[in-house]
Amino acid sequence: MVEETQSEGQEIEELCATARGCYARGWVPATSGNFSVRWGSRISITPTGLDKGVLVPRDLLEIDMNGSVLGGRGRPSAETSLHTVIYRERAHARAILHVHTIWNTLLSSRCSPCGCISIEGYELLKGLSGVTTHEHLEKVPVIENTQNYTVLSIDLQEVLLAYPDAHGVLLSRHGLYTWGESVAEARRHLEALEFLFEVEGRRLFGQPG
Amino acid sequence: MVEETQSEGQEIEELCATARGCYARGWVPATSGNFSVRWGSRISITPTGLDKGVLVPRDLLEIDMNGSVLGGRGRPSAETSLHTVIYRERAHARAILHVHTIWNTLLSSRCSPCGCISIEGYELLKGLSGVTTHEHLEKVPVIENTQNYTVLSIDLQEVLLAYPDAHGVLLSRHGLYTWGESVAEARRHLEALEFLFEVEGRRLFGQPG
Amino acid sequence: MVEETQSEGQEIEELCATARGCYARGWVPATSGNFSVRWGSRISITPTGLDKGVLVPRDLLEIDMNGSVLGGRGRPSAETSLHTVIYRERAHARAILHVHTIWNTLLSSRCSPCGCISIEGYELLKGLSGVTTHEHLEKVPVIENTQNYTVLSIDLQEVLLAYPDAHGVLLSRHGLYTWGESVAEARRHLEALEFLFEVEGRRLFGQPG
Amino acid sequence: MVEETQSEGQEIEELCATARGCYARGWVPATSGNFSVRWGSRISITPTGLDKGVLVPRDLLEIDMNGSVLGGRGRPSAETSLHTVIYRERAHARAILHVHTIWNTLLSSRCSPCGCISIEGYELLKGLSGVTTHEHLEKVPVIENTQNYTVLSIDLQEVLLAYPDAHGVLLSRHGLYTWGESVAEARRHLEALEFLFEVEGRRLFGQPG
Repeated sequence: MVEETQSEGQEIEELCATARGCYARGWVPATSGNFSVRWGSRISITPTGLDKGVLVPRDLLEIDMNGSVLGGRGRPSAETSLHTVIYRERAHARAILHVHTIWNTLLSSRCSPCGCISIEGYELLKGLSGVTTHEHLEKVPVIENTQNYTVLSIDLQEVLLAYPDAHGVLLSRHGLYTWGESVAEARRHLEALEFLFEVEGRRLFGQPG
Repeated sequence: MVEETQSEGQEIEELCATARGCYARGWVPATSGNFSVRWGSRISITPTGLDKGVLVPRDLLEIDMNGSVLGGRGRPSAETSLHTVIYRERAHARAILHVHTIWNTLLSSRCSPCGCISIEGYELLKGLSGVTTHEHLEKVPVIENTQNYTVLSIDLQEVLLAYPDAHGVLLSRHGLYTWGESVAEARRHLEALEFLFEVEGRRLFGQPG
Repeated sequence: MVEETQSEGQEIEELCATARGCYARGWVPATSGNFSVRWGSRISITPTGLDKGVLVPRDLLEIDMNGSVLGGRGRPSAETSLHTVIYRERAHARAILHVHTIWNTLLSSRCSPCGCISIEGYELLKGLSGVTTHEHLEKVPVIENTQNYTVLSIDLQEVLLAYPDAHGVLLSRHGLYTWGESVAEARRHLEALEFLFEVEGRRLFGQPG
Repeated sequence: MVEETQSEGQEIEELCATARGCYARGWVPATSGNFSVRWGSRISITPTGLDKGVLVPRDLLEIDMNGSVLGGRGRPSAETSLHTVIYRERAHARAILHVHTIWNTLLSSRCSPCGCISIEGYELLKGLSGVTTHEHLEKVPVIENTQNYTVLSIDLQEVLLAYPDAHGVLLSRHGLYTWGESVAEARRHLEALEFLFEVEGRRLFGQPG
């Protein structure tokens, strides 16, 4: 039990370090983005409106799987329900990262009519859990952005069901949600997907037409 | 009163930290840019010609709402009058940030014939105070650059009146002025607007025509 | 002997510092990349799946020239055989760096039909050992990526023989392998090649057609 | 005299800090670039082949105005004569910075047929000493690169005479030389010019044709 508590504290520390690293890269500008880690049915999550560049564990809010606040400071973000949807639909997920980047914004905007971004042929795809070859075709679903979070939660749930192998979901002109069985795995997925978005983005936007 | 004085000192510290952060991102090269925080009718502002990468509170100049020097070191920048215009026209503004970035330079140059840049449909618009949906249309006015600061002050005042909801003003091929009710809010506006300028810039410049 | 041991320790320290620097630049995202230094027939190499942003000497694995583990922690990466091929074919190589970057991915993809990337006319070519003029034509061979490491090792050996003067080899849509007589020289080759890839990449992708 | 000696030491410290800052930005990859500060007829200059990311004062070489070594460690760089030419032709110059960047490489390559790059209309031009308006037209001469340093010195001397108001000189596909009356002024020129090169580069390379 002591061990488990320590690990929980370490995961929360690593979540905050990951958030600060994302800020330093410009991936969560203007207090955007949100981050969580789950421990059984308790979720530690960033509250709304916080500067991620200085995030520390005591800033986090503790909620349950229905989004009800159990403890901690601040108000839950409107996107809290998206975290609980992901934790329900991806039973193994223990950490969720949500970032706004230049390239995920540009690509999600361009590919939103297709409903998903297809990425294939890159070695970095192997940064995604379970992927063992660059020949893998990763389909990242893109859902329309809306301020109606009930609709957004349903849409998110639907694409998680429709794309059972997806490692991330894009909200059009909004950002990426990705997850993992630990903060380290979620960060690996984040770095792999954002690398692939930038490569694809530069390839597509650098060409005419 | 003691509390208020402490807060003033903290805001000045945060303004300097924000300036150093902007330098690290390449947003105030070659001693460019200027930054201020207001406390009632007293304004603490960066003097002319200072390297923002090493800015500390004792470098700041104290002026009144007419731009007259009350104390501190250095000479006022020629753009000091733009700060006082903004503080007068935006009664709630307590902090002003002015930066020169690659993308605000490119975009302001391209959009200056239209008189403003229209940005719509991005989640990051919600980083701007009072904006609650990505469907918001933000119009960032662009004014012509001139070395006649009397003309520039009048032009700035005019666009602030003409665009009462604007969160920032661009000077063509020069830079962005943005503000907020605190340094933190001004920095949030800065990060949101610069993110949106880069997204729009990459979208527009990556396409022929 | 004491001196040699010290130098070995210093080279391993420098290899780790180089790996952490590569992570900070975004050149080894998602635990990708691998790094080694050779001391006679003993090779210290990064094991599989490690975050390079926090690499320290005790994380390294020690192997022999056949890839058999002599000591240390972790499992060898599948690409270990590529390191031993390079050490065999480039007798003077004492350090090998392998990174995944945006520009080496884009360029290797575009140039893989030609079998090599030809770079000529840049002063930075002189960052490559033995090159004394910008008029030098550097041919960086590009081999097809595959998950069959036996095939990949043979292909790598072939291009090392076919391009005896090459300072690096690209794996298409995968990454760069470069080496040197010391970690410092390998890092110099890495920085020179990646600079040239970005210049060439921006030149080619910024133009229509 | 004591004061002068202190100032000399401080300028040398600032030169090294500037060099380390340039490395961190990727402006002097692969041990490229060189930096000097002049004190009367004595010049402290970086020797050849040094990693600028870790430059400290004791690494510098002391030479006279003919390039003869007076003291210090290492071998003079082949480009030492370019520094002495600049110090002779620009009597007020006390510091010289030479960097290799992506954008100065791309722009110098594209504009080398014209013999110079003309930049006009940007506020950042005021980062150049003596420039008081964005309407200023800065012409940055571009000379052909060659490994014949006698020819290069003569070509450099000629453009310094032909462009008496220039704040920097580009060597085609090689890099920028800029200078100032102090390290701080030289760094201001460097940051202003590189900003302008990137703006112009993105404008030109992002457009077809």
